[in-house]
Amino acid sequence: MRIGIIGLGLIGGSFAMALRAATGTEHESIWAVERDATVRSGATSAGVVDTAFASVNQAPIENTDVVLLCLHPAACVDMLPLIAPRLSPGAILSDVCGIKGPVAARAREVFPASDAGPWFIGGHPMAGKERGGYANASPTLFQRAHYLLCPEGAPPDAVERLRGLAKRVGCIDVILTDPSTHDTNIAYTSQMMHVLALAICEQQPFAGSFGFEGNSFRGATRVAALEADLWAELFWDNRQALARVLDELTGKLGEYHVLLTEGNREALARRLRETSDMKKAMEKR
Amino acid sequence: MRIGIIGLGLIGGSFAMALRAATGTEHESIWAVERDATVRSGATSAGVVDTAFASVNQAPIENTDVVLLCLHPAACVDMLPLIAPRLSPGAILSDVCGIKGPVAARAREVFPASDAGPWFIGGHPMAGKERGGYANASPTLFQRAHYLLCPEGAPPDAVERLRGLAKRVGCIDVILTDPSTHDTNIAYTSQMMHVLALAICEQQPFAGSFGFEGNSFRGATRVAALEADLWAELFWDNRQALARVLDELTGKLGEYHVLLTEGNREALARRLRETSDMKKAMEKR
Repeated sequence: MRIGIIGLGLIGGSFAMALRAATGTEHESIWAVERDATVRSGATSAGVVDTAFASVNQAPIENTDVVLLCLHPAACVDMLPLIAPRLSPGAILSDVCGIKGPVAARAREVFPASDAGPWFIGGHPMAGKERGGYANASPTLFQRAHYLLCPEGAPPDAVERLRGLAKRVGCIDVILTDPSTHDTNIAYTSQMMHVLALAICEQQPFAGSFGFEGNSFRGATRVAALEADLWAELFWDNRQALARVLDELTGKLGEYHVLLTEGNREALARRLRETSDMKKAMEKR
Repeated sequence: MRIGIIGLGLIGGSFAMALRAATGTEHESIWAVERDATVRSGATSAGVVDTAFASVNQAPIENTDVVLLCLHPAACVDMLPLIAPRLSPGAILSDVCGIKGPVAARAREVFPASDAGPWFIGGHPMAGKERGGYANASPTLFQRAHYLLCPEGAPPDAVERLRGLAKRVGCIDVILTDPSTHDTNIAYTSQMMHVLALAICEQQPFAGSFGFEGNSFRGATRVAALEADLWAELFWDNRQALARVLDELTGKLGEYHVLLTEGNREALARRLRETSDMKKAMEKR
């Protein structure tokens, strides 16, 4: 298989490293497009990719089986019309954005409806780090992560090709979904967690409580050290769904506030028992 | 040193295991009081403790240097007057409760003011697991955890004795504080994280979003599978401080809601930049 990766940042770099570390991929060729000359020479001399180009114009898009756009959402949307017309029949273009609606909408415009392909299949590996860039990339980034795919009209064998790549970089499974379901779910499972982490760190006791934190605090606030521009883009493109789940959460927190200030210990214990039992049951599934 | 552990649950069991696994503790004797006969025989036959008693009446409190109460807060408060009169001069009684006010208040009543001791020094190792009990105890539970101590009137050498134990079970440091500061800080760093985890898991999308979760979700919701009775006790005993930080958090989340529904992307990005920069700077300290 001939694979192209556009953008050797945290995700693109980790993807290339993970592919190269996997067995049975010795005969695959991987090229990359990356603006940063230091990253290009680092990645080629380390053997992470075979070739690295400064611009997408130089890349052999026409002779590539799977092209992976590893850019932020707006850059991804801008790149779609430059790539789509150059893909060969049967080729797959995918991306790794944390929001799928805007990318999928643009892809529908620039991809010809064709049974023979090329096809666009939106993707989202549920893995990341607080700090981006190739310097933080790692071949183990995707270990045990879900890989979300939005096949829309693409045929099963094209989906299988991406599933194979997802498995080889270490993902635990591939979840097939559609852009709208993806964005609604992600507002809750991912974006809201990032808003929460930020909000907690903005509270007055934050600076004065060093030394009092345990793993629950670390777990809930780790992602507050986020890449601001990327996450502002993700939040903003999904703001309705995000505002909705934040609103629901605020309501739940308000109920706990009432239990603490106007309730009684028995009612509080009952609620804790119900929710913790439900969480434990869900983990066992 | 002769050490007594009252309650071989998750914390007491892990403490005994960690002490036994540490070097230079071969000549220490450790006894335990534990109601559960299976746990008693398991812990003694595994060499985790030298002797285990079914009741505190049988335990050699009089001949022990450090007694550690590893019980839930209310049980701890009830046990204090049964232990304090039996401790020898120079001995230390400590506990491991997640809230220090009620235990410290009762300790002040039952401990005679004496320069020669015995002394009560409240303690709180910032470590735990969702599932309690000796079956989940582990010698590595305290690795890299903060150990909070409230020495109040105890002399430095008594504090040093507990600090030594904390280091030997693997804690990263010992933070000296007082019960009131402890409870205010813990409402924010620990109890609020548990309320949040519960509230997130109570939201409508919870059950339908399996497969869409990443590490931010896992980190923020792990502790929702909590021991309901223990945490209802901790929340209730600290309800004013907990309600206050929940209120503050709700206000912050409301600000994000406004930014998403009435603001603009630039203002949102600015806020993310400020908070993430602050979090990154704090991590570097």
